[in-house]
Amino acid sequence: MNAEPILAPHRSVRVFLPVPLPEGMLERIVREAQRAPTDATAQMYSFVRVTSGELRRRIAEFSGEQSHVADAAEFLVVCADLHRLEAVLASRGRGLGTYPATGLHFAIVDASLAAQRLVDAAEALGLGTVCIGGILNGVEELVGLLALPRGVLPLFGVCLGQPGEAPVERPRVALASVLHTDRYRGQTPEAIEADVASMAAITRSRDWVEVLVRYFAWGGTMEQREGALRRVLDQQGFAC
Amino acid sequence: MNAEPILAPHRSVRVFLPVPLPEGMLERIVREAQRAPTDATAQMYSFVRVTSGELRRRIAEFSGEQSHVADAAEFLVVCADLHRLEAVLASRGRGLGTYPATGLHFAIVDASLAAQRLVDAAEALGLGTVCIGGILNGVEELVGLLALPRGVLPLFGVCLGQPGEAPVERPRVALASVLHTDRYRGQTPEAIEADVASMAAITRSRDWVEVLVRYFAWGGTMEQREGALRRVLDQQGFAC
Repeated sequence: MNAEPILAPHRSVRVFLPVPLPEGMLERIVREAQRAPTDATAQMYSFVRVTSGELRRRIAEFSGEQSHVADAAEFLVVCADLHRLEAVLASRGRGLGTYPATGLHFAIVDASLAAQRLVDAAEALGLGTVCIGGILNGVEELVGLLALPRGVLPLFGVCLGQPGEAPVERPRVALASVLHTDRYRGQTPEAIEADVASMAAITRSRDWVEVLVRYFAWGGTMEQREGALRRVLDQQGFAC
Repeated sequence: MNAEPILAPHRSVRVFLPVPLPEGMLERIVREAQRAPTDATAQMYSFVRVTSGELRRRIAEFSGEQSHVADAAEFLVVCADLHRLEAVLASRGRGLGTYPATGLHFAIVDASLAAQRLVDAAEALGLGTVCIGGILNGVEELVGLLALPRGVLPLFGVCLGQPGEAPVERPRVALASVLHTDRYRGQTPEAIEADVASMAAITRSRDWVEVLVRYFAWGGTMEQREGALRRVLDQQGFAC
Protein backbone atom coordinates (compact mmCIF):
# COMPACT_ATOMS: atom_id res chain seq x y z
CA MET A 1 0.00 0.00 0.00
CA ASN A 2 1.16 3.51 -0.77
CA ALA A 3 1.68 5.04 2.66
CA GLU A 4 3.34 8.25 1.47
CA PRO A 5 2.05 11.36 3.24
CA ILE A 6 -0.10 13.65 1.12
CA LEU A 7 0.05 16.98 2.93
CA ALA A 8 2.89 18.74 4.73
CA PRO A 9 3.54 16.88 7.99
CA HIS A 10 1.73 18.01 11.10
CA ARG A 11 3.58 18.15 14.37
CA SER A 12 2.51 20.46 17.17
CA VAL A 13 5.30 23.03 17.55
CA ARG A 14 5.63 24.77 20.90
CA VAL A 15 8.88 26.69 20.39
CA PHE A 16 8.90 29.48 17.81
CA LEU A 17 11.64 31.70 16.41
CA PRO A 18 11.20 35.36 17.41
CA VAL A 19 10.55 36.53 13.85
CA PRO A 20 7.34 37.87 12.33
CA LEU A 21 5.62 36.21 9.39
CA PRO A 22 6.58 37.72 6.01
CA GLU A 23 4.37 40.64 4.98
CA GLY A 24 0.98 39.41 3.77
CA MET A 25 1.50 35.76 4.69
CA LEU A 26 -1.11 35.71 7.46
CA GLU A 27 -3.73 37.20 5.14
CA ARG A 28 -2.83 34.67 2.45
CA ILE A 29 -3.28 31.83 4.94
CA VAL A 30 -6.61 33.17 6.21
CA ARG A 31 -7.85 33.51 2.61
CA GLU A 32 -6.96 29.86 2.12
CA ALA A 33 -8.85 28.99 5.33
CA GLN A 34 -11.89 30.78 3.90
CA ARG A 35 -11.90 28.29 0.99
CA ALA A 36 -12.93 25.49 3.40
CA PRO A 37 -16.40 24.03 2.87
CA THR A 38 -19.08 25.91 4.81
CA ASP A 39 -22.59 24.83 5.66
CA ALA A 40 -25.26 26.48 3.50
CA THR A 41 -22.76 29.19 2.43
CA ALA A 42 -22.96 30.86 5.85
CA GLN A 43 -19.28 30.91 6.98
CA MET A 44 -20.19 30.79 10.67
CA TYR A 45 -16.78 31.64 12.10
CA SER A 46 -14.38 34.42 12.97
CA PHE A 47 -10.68 34.51 13.78
CA VAL A 48 -9.52 37.02 16.38
CA ARG A 49 -5.85 37.78 15.81
CA VAL A 50 -4.32 38.71 19.15
CA THR A 51 -1.48 41.20 18.73
CA SER A 52 -1.47 42.87 22.16
CA GLY A 53 1.39 41.51 24.29
CA GLU A 54 -0.63 42.04 27.44
CA LEU A 55 -3.59 40.05 26.08
CA ARG A 56 -1.27 37.32 24.83
CA ARG A 57 0.41 36.97 28.23
CA ARG A 58 -2.93 36.80 30.03
CA ILE A 59 -4.29 34.13 27.66
CA ALA A 60 -1.01 32.16 27.93
CA GLU A 61 -1.36 32.27 31.71
CA PHE A 62 -4.91 30.96 32.04
CA SER A 63 -4.34 28.43 29.23
CA GLY A 64 -1.84 26.66 31.51
CA GLU A 65 1.42 28.65 31.36
CA GLN A 66 1.77 27.98 27.66
CA SER A 67 4.52 30.49 26.81
CA HIS A 68 4.18 29.80 23.06
CA VAL A 69 0.81 31.58 23.18
CA ALA A 70 2.74 34.72 24.08
CA ASP A 71 5.82 34.02 21.92
CA ALA A 72 4.51 32.77 18.57
CA ALA A 73 4.57 35.25 15.68
CA GLU A 74 0.77 34.97 15.44
CA PHE A 75 -1.93 33.76 17.79
CA LEU A 76 -5.52 33.45 16.60
CA VAL A 77 -8.62 32.63 18.62
CA VAL A 78 -10.94 30.51 16.46
CA CYS A 79 -14.59 31.38 17.16
CA ALA A 80 -17.93 29.91 16.18
CA ASP A 81 -19.88 32.96 14.93
CA LEU A 82 -23.62 33.34 14.39
CA HIS A 83 -23.46 37.06 15.15
CA ARG A 84 -22.32 38.07 11.67
CA LEU A 85 -24.99 35.86 10.08
CA GLU A 86 -27.61 37.50 12.29
CA ALA A 87 -26.42 40.95 11.16
CA VAL A 88 -26.73 39.94 7.48
CA LEU A 89 -30.29 38.69 8.05
CA ALA A 90 -31.15 41.81 10.06
CA SER A 91 -30.01 44.00 7.14
CA ARG A 92 -33.04 42.59 5.27
CA GLY A 93 -35.39 42.71 8.24
CA ARG A 94 -35.11 38.98 8.93
CA GLY A 95 -34.23 37.30 12.21
CA LEU A 96 -32.27 34.20 13.12
CA GLY A 97 -34.53 31.35 14.11
CA THR A 98 -34.29 29.66 17.50
CA TYR A 99 -32.07 26.60 17.31
CA PRO A 100 -29.30 26.81 19.90
CA ALA A 101 -28.18 23.18 19.56
CA THR A 102 -28.22 23.14 15.75
CA GLY A 103 -26.57 26.57 15.57
CA LEU A 104 -23.80 25.46 17.91
CA HIS A 105 -23.35 22.23 15.94
CA PHE A 106 -22.94 23.86 12.54
CA ALA A 107 -20.95 26.86 13.78
CA ILE A 108 -18.38 24.67 15.60
CA VAL A 109 -18.07 22.47 12.51
CA ASP A 110 -17.72 25.46 10.15
CA ALA A 111 -15.12 27.17 12.34
CA SER A 112 -13.09 23.99 12.81
CA LEU A 113 -13.08 23.20 9.08
CA ALA A 114 -11.77 26.68 8.32
CA ALA A 115 -9.19 26.44 11.13
CA GLN A 116 -7.86 23.09 9.90
CA ARG A 117 -7.53 24.43 6.37
CA LEU A 118 -5.62 27.34 7.92
CA VAL A 119 -3.30 24.88 9.71
CA ASP A 120 -2.80 22.80 6.55
CA ALA A 121 -2.00 25.96 4.56
CA ALA A 122 0.41 27.28 7.20
CA GLU A 123 2.25 23.96 7.32
CA ALA A 124 2.40 23.83 3.52
CA LEU A 125 4.34 27.12 3.75
CA GLY A 126 6.75 25.61 6.31
CA LEU A 127 5.29 27.29 9.38
CA GLY A 128 4.87 25.55 12.72
CA THR A 129 1.46 25.46 14.39
CA VAL A 130 -0.14 24.30 17.61
CA CYS A 131 -3.78 24.34 18.64
CA ILE A 132 -4.56 25.51 22.16
CA GLY A 133 -7.60 23.90 23.78
CA GLY A 134 -6.48 25.39 27.10
CA ILE A 135 -8.14 28.73 26.30
CA LEU A 136 -11.29 27.01 27.61
CA ASN A 137 -9.79 27.30 31.12
CA GLY A 138 -10.47 31.04 30.94
CA VAL A 139 -13.40 31.09 28.55
CA GLU A 140 -15.51 33.54 30.56
CA GLU A 141 -12.67 36.02 30.87
CA LEU A 142 -11.76 35.55 27.19
CA VAL A 143 -15.24 36.53 26.02
CA GLY A 144 -14.77 39.82 27.88
CA LEU A 145 -11.17 40.39 26.79
CA LEU A 146 -12.01 39.96 23.09
CA ALA A 147 -15.42 41.71 23.43
CA LEU A 148 -17.20 38.76 21.83
CA PRO A 149 -20.89 39.57 21.29
CA ARG A 150 -23.79 37.20 21.76
CA GLY A 151 -23.64 34.50 19.06
CA VAL A 152 -19.84 34.20 19.21
CA LEU A 153 -18.09 31.39 21.12
CA PRO A 154 -14.31 30.96 21.42
CA LEU A 155 -13.38 27.36 20.50
CA PHE A 156 -9.58 27.06 20.63
CA GLY A 157 -6.45 29.02 19.81
CA VAL A 158 -3.86 28.53 17.06
CA CYS A 159 -0.21 29.61 17.30
CA LEU A 160 1.64 30.16 14.01
CA GLY A 161 5.27 30.99 13.37
CA GLN A 162 8.66 29.86 12.15
CA PRO A 163 9.37 26.66 14.09
CA GLY A 164 12.13 26.81 16.69
CA GLU A 165 12.04 23.05 17.26
CA ALA A 166 11.52 19.96 15.09
CA PRO A 167 9.45 17.50 17.14
CA VAL A 168 9.17 13.91 16.00
CA GLU A 169 5.86 12.77 14.54
CA ARG A 170 3.60 11.64 17.34
CA PRO A 171 1.63 8.39 17.16
CA ARG A 172 -2.07 7.92 16.50
CA VAL A 173 -4.49 5.07 17.20
CA ALA A 174 -4.88 2.36 14.53
CA LEU A 175 -6.71 3.20 11.33
CA ALA A 176 -9.23 0.46 12.20
CA SER A 177 -10.03 2.26 15.47
CA VAL A 178 -11.37 5.32 13.64
CA LEU A 179 -12.73 3.78 10.42
CA HIS A 180 -15.92 1.71 10.56
CA THR A 181 -17.89 0.13 7.72
CA ASP A 182 -21.68 0.54 7.60
CA ARG A 183 -22.09 0.03 11.34
CA TYR A 184 -20.16 1.31 14.33
CA ARG A 185 -17.99 -1.44 15.74
CA GLY A 186 -16.91 -1.24 19.40
CA GLN A 187 -13.26 -1.80 20.27
CA THR A 188 -12.11 -5.28 21.25
CA PRO A 189 -9.85 -5.50 24.33
CA GLU A 190 -7.01 -6.41 21.94
CA ALA A 191 -7.57 -3.28 19.83
CA ILE A 192 -7.56 -1.12 22.97
CA GLU A 193 -4.30 -2.66 24.18
CA ALA A 194 -2.72 -2.17 20.75
CA ASP A 195 -3.74 1.51 20.74
CA VAL A 196 -2.50 2.03 24.29
CA ALA A 197 0.83 0.47 23.28
CA SER A 198 1.17 2.56 20.08
CA MET A 199 0.23 5.76 21.87
CA ALA A 200 2.77 5.20 24.69
CA ALA A 201 5.37 7.28 22.84
CA ILE A 202 3.12 10.35 23.03
CA THR A 203 3.92 10.95 26.66
CA ARG A 204 7.06 11.10 28.77
CA SER A 205 5.64 8.65 31.32
CA ARG A 206 5.02 6.13 28.47
CA ASP A 207 1.49 5.76 29.84
CA TRP A 208 -1.08 7.25 27.47
CA VAL A 209 -3.98 6.38 29.74
CA GLU A 210 -2.49 8.59 32.48
CA VAL A 211 -2.76 11.57 30.11
CA LEU A 212 -6.33 10.66 29.25
CA VAL A 213 -7.20 10.25 32.95
CA ARG A 214 -5.77 13.69 33.75
CA TYR A 215 -8.00 15.32 31.13
CA PHE A 216 -11.06 13.13 30.78
CA ALA A 217 -11.71 11.10 33.95
CA TRP A 218 -13.65 12.13 37.08
CA GLY A 219 -12.22 15.36 38.48
CA GLY A 220 -10.06 15.97 35.41
CA THR A 221 -9.51 19.06 33.28
CA MET A 222 -12.68 18.64 31.22
CA GLU A 223 -14.89 18.51 34.31
CA GLN A 224 -13.19 21.63 35.65
CA ARG A 225 -14.04 23.46 32.42
CA GLU A 226 -17.71 22.44 32.35
CA GLY A 227 -19.25 25.07 34.63
CA ALA A 228 -17.67 28.06 32.92
CA LEU A 229 -18.40 26.73 29.44
CA ARG A 230 -22.07 26.23 30.31
CA ARG A 231 -22.31 29.77 31.64
CA VAL A 232 -20.69 31.11 28.47
CA LEU A 233 -22.97 29.00 26.24
CA ASP A 234 -25.91 30.50 28.09
CA GLN A 235 -24.59 34.06 27.93
CA GLN A 236 -23.67 33.81 24.22
CA GLY A 237 -27.04 32.34 23.22
CA PHE A 238 -26.15 28.68 22.68
CA ALA A 239 -27.93 27.06 25.63
CA CYS A 240 -30.88 24.77 24.95
CA MET B 1 0.36 40.81 -2.11
CA ASN B 2 0.94 37.19 -3.01
CA ALA B 3 -2.56 35.84 -3.50
CA GLU B 4 -1.51 32.46 -4.94
CA PRO B 5 -3.50 29.55 -3.50
CA ILE B 6 -1.54 27.29 -1.18
CA LEU B 7 -3.55 24.05 -1.16
CA ALA B 8 -5.40 22.24 -3.93
CA PRO B 9 -8.53 24.23 -4.76
CA HIS B 10 -11.73 23.40 -2.93
CA ARG B 11 -14.98 23.35 -4.85
CA SER B 12 -17.92 21.27 -3.70
CA VAL B 13 -18.40 18.57 -6.34
CA ARG B 14 -21.86 17.01 -6.63
CA VAL B 15 -21.40 14.87 -9.75
CA PHE B 16 -18.99 11.93 -9.56
CA LEU B 17 -17.68 9.47 -12.14
CA PRO B 18 -18.92 5.92 -11.51
CA VAL B 19 -15.44 4.59 -10.71
CA PRO B 20 -14.06 3.36 -7.40
CA LEU B 21 -11.06 4.94 -5.73
CA PRO B 22 -7.76 3.18 -6.54
CA GLU B 23 -6.94 0.34 -4.13
CA GLY B 24 -5.70 1.68 -0.79
CA MET B 25 -6.40 5.37 -1.53
CA LEU B 26 -9.21 5.73 1.00
CA GLU B 27 -7.02 4.27 3.75
CA ARG B 28 -4.17 6.58 2.75
CA ILE B 29 -6.50 9.59 2.99
CA VAL B 30 -7.90 8.52 6.37
CA ARG B 31 -4.35 8.05 7.70
CA GLU B 32 -3.63 11.61 6.60
CA ALA B 33 -6.81 12.76 8.39
CA GLN B 34 -5.54 11.09 11.55
CA ARG B 35 -2.49 13.40 11.48
CA ALA B 36 -4.74 16.39 12.29
CA PRO B 37 -4.19 18.01 15.68
CA THR B 38 -6.27 16.41 18.43
CA ASP B 39 -7.12 17.73 21.86
CA ALA B 40 -5.11 16.13 24.65
CA THR B 41 -4.14 13.21 22.34
CA ALA B 42 -7.68 11.77 22.56
CA GLN B 43 -8.75 11.56 18.87
CA MET B 44 -12.43 11.96 19.70
CA TYR B 45 -13.85 10.99 16.31
CA SER B 46 -14.83 8.12 14.06
CA PHE B 47 -15.60 7.86 10.36
CA VAL B 48 -18.32 5.45 9.30
CA ARG B 49 -17.73 4.43 5.67
CA VAL B 50 -21.11 3.61 4.14
CA THR B 51 -20.78 0.93 1.47
CA SER B 52 -24.29 -0.53 1.48
CA GLY B 53 -26.30 0.76 -1.48
CA GLU B 54 -29.51 0.57 0.50
CA LEU B 55 -28.08 2.62 3.36
CA ARG B 56 -26.65 5.15 0.91
CA ARG B 57 -29.98 5.58 -0.85
CA ARG B 58 -31.83 6.06 2.43
CA ILE B 59 -29.32 8.66 3.68
CA ALA B 60 -29.41 10.43 0.29
CA GLU B 61 -33.20 10.56 0.57
CA PHE B 62 -33.52 12.10 4.02
CA SER B 63 -30.56 14.43 3.37
CA GLY B 64 -32.68 16.17 0.72
CA GLU B 65 -32.60 14.01 -2.41
CA GLN B 66 -28.86 14.43 -2.74
CA SER B 67 -28.11 11.72 -5.31
CA HIS B 68 -24.34 12.21 -4.95
CA VAL B 69 -24.62 10.65 -1.47
CA ALA B 70 -25.67 7.45 -3.23
CA ASP B 71 -23.43 7.85 -6.31
CA ALA B 72 -20.01 8.97 -5.00
CA ALA B 73 -17.29 6.33 -4.84
CA GLU B 74 -17.09 6.82 -1.09
CA PHE B 75 -19.41 8.32 1.50
CA LEU B 76 -18.26 8.78 5.09
CA VAL B 77 -20.28 9.90 8.10
CA VAL B 78 -18.05 12.01 10.33
CA CYS B 79 -18.84 11.41 14.01
CA ALA B 80 -17.83 13.01 17.29
CA ASP B 81 -16.82 10.02 19.43
CA LEU B 82 -16.36 9.84 23.20
CA HIS B 83 -17.34 6.16 23.24
CA ARG B 84 -13.90 4.86 22.23
CA LEU B 85 -12.24 7.14 24.80
CA GLU B 86 -14.58 5.80 27.46
CA ALA B 87 -13.63 2.22 26.50
CA VAL B 88 -9.91 3.03 26.83
CA LEU B 89 -10.46 4.52 30.29
CA ALA B 90 -12.66 1.57 31.29
CA SER B 91 -9.86 -0.84 30.33
CA ARG B 92 -7.96 0.63 33.33
CA GLY B 93 -10.96 0.80 35.61
CA ARG B 94 -11.43 4.56 35.11
CA GLY B 95 -14.59 6.37 34.09
CA LEU B 96 -15.29 9.40 31.91
CA GLY B 97 -16.14 12.43 34.01
CA THR B 98 -19.42 14.31 33.58
CA TYR B 99 -19.01 17.21 31.18
CA PRO B 100 -21.55 16.99 28.37
CA ALA B 101 -20.97 20.53 27.05
CA THR B 102 -17.18 20.33 27.17
CA GLY B 103 -17.17 16.82 25.72
CA LEU B 104 -19.39 17.90 22.85
CA HIS B 105 -17.24 20.97 22.25
CA PHE B 106 -13.92 19.13 22.00
CA ALA B 107 -15.31 16.09 20.17
CA ILE B 108 -16.95 18.22 17.44
CA VAL B 109 -13.73 20.22 17.06
CA ASP B 110 -11.55 17.08 16.93
CA ALA B 111 -13.80 15.36 14.39
CA SER B 112 -14.04 18.43 12.17
CA LEU B 113 -10.28 19.01 12.18
CA ALA B 114 -9.71 15.41 11.08
CA ALA B 115 -12.45 15.67 8.45
CA GLN B 116 -11.01 18.84 6.94
CA ARG B 117 -7.55 17.29 6.77
CA LEU B 118 -9.24 14.38 5.00
CA VAL B 119 -10.84 16.79 2.51
CA ASP B 120 -7.56 18.65 1.94
CA ALA B 121 -5.75 15.35 1.37
CA ALA B 122 -8.41 14.03 -1.01
CA GLU B 123 -8.31 17.23 -3.05
CA ALA B 124 -4.50 17.12 -3.13
CA LEU B 125 -4.90 13.75 -4.88
CA GLY B 126 -7.32 15.25 -7.40
CA LEU B 127 -10.52 13.84 -5.92
CA GLY B 128 -13.73 15.80 -5.67
CA THR B 129 -15.47 16.20 -2.30
CA VAL B 130 -18.63 17.63 -0.84
CA CYS B 131 -19.73 17.87 2.78
CA ILE B 132 -23.33 16.95 3.56
CA GLY B 133 -24.90 18.84 6.46
CA GLY B 134 -28.29 17.48 5.37
CA ILE B 135 -27.70 14.20 7.24
CA LEU B 136 -28.97 16.18 10.25
CA ASN B 137 -32.46 16.00 8.70
CA GLY B 138 -32.51 12.31 9.61
CA VAL B 139 -30.19 12.31 12.58
CA GLU B 140 -32.37 10.08 14.79
CA GLU B 141 -32.77 7.47 12.09
CA LEU B 142 -29.08 7.66 11.22
CA VAL B 143 -28.01 6.84 14.79
CA GLY B 144 -30.04 3.64 14.48
CA LEU B 145 -28.93 2.79 10.92
CA LEU B 146 -25.24 3.06 11.82
CA ALA B 147 -25.74 1.53 15.31
CA LEU B 148 -23.99 4.48 16.95
CA PRO B 149 -23.58 3.85 20.68
CA ARG B 150 -23.93 6.43 23.45
CA GLY B 151 -21.08 8.92 23.19
CA VAL B 152 -21.15 9.04 19.38
CA LEU B 153 -22.85 11.83 17.43
CA PRO B 154 -23.07 12.07 13.62
CA LEU B 155 -21.92 15.54 12.50
CA PHE B 156 -21.97 15.63 8.69
CA GLY B 157 -21.21 13.44 5.69
CA VAL B 158 -18.40 13.61 3.13
CA CYS B 159 -18.65 12.32 -0.45
CA LEU B 160 -15.37 11.47 -2.20
CA GLY B 161 -14.73 10.41 -5.76
CA GLN B 162 -13.38 11.23 -9.19
CA PRO B 163 -15.10 14.50 -10.12
CA GLY B 164 -17.67 14.36 -12.91
CA GLU B 165 -18.01 18.13 -13.06
CA ALA B 166 -15.66 21.10 -12.68
CA PRO B 167 -17.59 23.79 -10.79
CA VAL B 168 -16.24 27.33 -10.69
CA GLU B 169 -14.77 28.58 -7.45
CA ARG B 170 -17.55 29.99 -5.31
CA PRO B 171 -17.21 33.34 -3.53
CA ARG B 172 -16.58 34.00 0.15
CA VAL B 173 -17.15 37.03 2.39
CA ALA B 174 -14.35 39.57 2.67
CA LEU B 175 -11.23 38.68 4.62
CA ALA B 176 -11.97 41.60 6.94
CA SER B 177 -15.36 40.06 7.79
CA VAL B 178 -13.73 36.98 9.34
CA LEU B 179 -10.45 38.43 10.67
CA HIS B 180 -10.52 40.67 13.73
CA THR B 181 -7.63 42.20 15.67
CA ASP B 182 -7.59 42.00 19.48
CA ARG B 183 -11.31 42.76 19.79
CA TYR B 184 -14.33 41.55 17.87
CA ARG B 185 -15.55 44.23 15.51
CA GLY B 186 -19.17 44.17 14.37
CA GLN B 187 -19.95 44.56 10.68
CA THR B 188 -20.71 48.02 9.30
CA PRO B 189 -23.72 48.29 6.98
CA GLU B 190 -21.24 48.88 4.15
CA ALA B 191 -19.34 45.68 4.94
CA ILE B 192 -22.59 43.72 4.98
CA GLU B 193 -23.65 45.14 1.61
CA ALA B 194 -20.23 44.34 0.14
CA ASP B 195 -20.46 40.73 1.36
CA VAL B 196 -24.02 40.34 0.08
CA ALA B 197 -22.86 41.64 -3.31
CA SER B 198 -19.79 39.35 -3.46
CA MET B 199 -21.79 36.32 -2.38
CA ALA B 200 -24.52 36.91 -5.01
CA ALA B 201 -22.75 34.57 -7.44
CA ILE B 202 -23.15 31.65 -5.01
CA THR B 203 -26.81 31.24 -5.87
CA ARG B 204 -28.87 31.01 -9.01
CA SER B 205 -31.28 33.68 -7.79
CA ARG B 206 -28.30 36.04 -7.27
CA ASP B 207 -29.71 36.71 -3.79
CA TRP B 208 -27.48 35.24 -1.09
CA VAL B 209 -29.75 36.42 1.70
CA GLU B 210 -32.57 34.28 0.28
CA VAL B 211 -30.39 31.20 0.79
CA LEU B 212 -29.55 32.27 4.32
CA VAL B 213 -33.23 32.93 5.07
CA ARG B 214 -34.19 29.46 3.85
CA TYR B 215 -31.71 27.82 6.21
CA PHE B 216 -31.29 30.16 9.14
CA ALA B 217 -34.34 32.40 9.61
CA TRP B 218 -37.56 31.70 11.52
CA GLY B 219 -39.12 28.47 10.28
CA GLY B 220 -36.05 27.55 8.22
CA THR B 221 -34.12 24.30 7.89
CA MET B 222 -32.09 24.80 11.07
CA GLU B 223 -35.19 25.23 13.21
CA GLN B 224 -36.69 22.11 11.67
CA ARG B 225 -33.59 20.15 12.71
CA GLU B 226 -33.53 21.38 16.30
CA GLY B 227 -35.98 18.98 17.95
CA ALA B 228 -34.43 15.79 16.58
CA LEU B 229 -30.89 16.98 17.29
CA ARG B 230 -31.79 17.74 20.91
CA ARG B 231 -33.34 14.31 21.34
CA VAL B 232 -30.22 12.70 19.87
CA LEU B 233 -27.92 14.79 22.06
CA ASP B 234 -29.89 13.59 25.04
CA GLN B 235 -29.92 9.96 23.93
CA GLN B 236 -26.18 9.93 23.08
CA GLY B 237 -25.17 11.53 26.39
CA PHE B 238 -24.39 15.10 25.30
CA ALA B 239 -27.29 16.98 26.91
CA CYS B 240 -26.49 19.39 29.76
